[in-house]
Amino acid sequence: MYGLIGRMLAVDGRREELLTTLLEGSAPMPGCRSYVIARDPGSDNGIWISEVWDSREQHKASLHLAHVQATIAKARPMIAGFAERFETEPKGGIGI
Amino acid sequence: MYGLIGRMLAVDGRREELLTTLLEGSAPMPGCRSYVIARDPGSDNGIWISEVWDSREQHKASLHLAHVQATIAKARPMIAGFAERFETEPKGGIGI
Repeated sequence: MYGLIGRMLAVDGRREELLTTLLEGSAPMPGCRSYVIARDPGSDNGIWISEVWDSREQHKASLHLAHVQATIAKARPMIAGFAERFETEPKGGIGI
Repeated sequence: MYGLIGRMLAVDGRREELLTTLLEGSAPMPGCRSYVIARDPGSDNGIWISEVWDSREQHKASLHLAHVQATIAKARPMIAGFAERFETEPKGGIGI
């Protein structure tokens, strides 16, 4: 499996709108086992996204899906940048 | 919901053994929606654990479950310490 844990930074005052956009856009994707969108309580504009995929290739391919591209286009003006980004190798657990 | 993202550090040379112990111990827990155990490919001894719970209280209560205490006792000699630790407020997504 392939995993990503990252923190996105919303434009000031637009975190809730960005969260809503990301949640609305989180339709099933081939090879995606888990995709958790969370508010970062330690900042005013952070959003944590934790992903588990069957493979790195399926994550990469997902970026070309029509509904993912539509969500990226809608979200882009609300994104100020990116902070932490960690790749992981999920081995198992609960809910994946 | 309540979330935790953290990186545990294994004693040198014991990461695989610690991963196996954590995976064997990951039985269902009340209020636990997701518990992902992953190798950190960026280090020799890091293990990422990403958790989603219905509430902070259910996470806290889980630490008193018999099978969780047994896993903690078995894992403790293999744990060198803890690195990053982030609390989150999961809002939704896929697989939770």
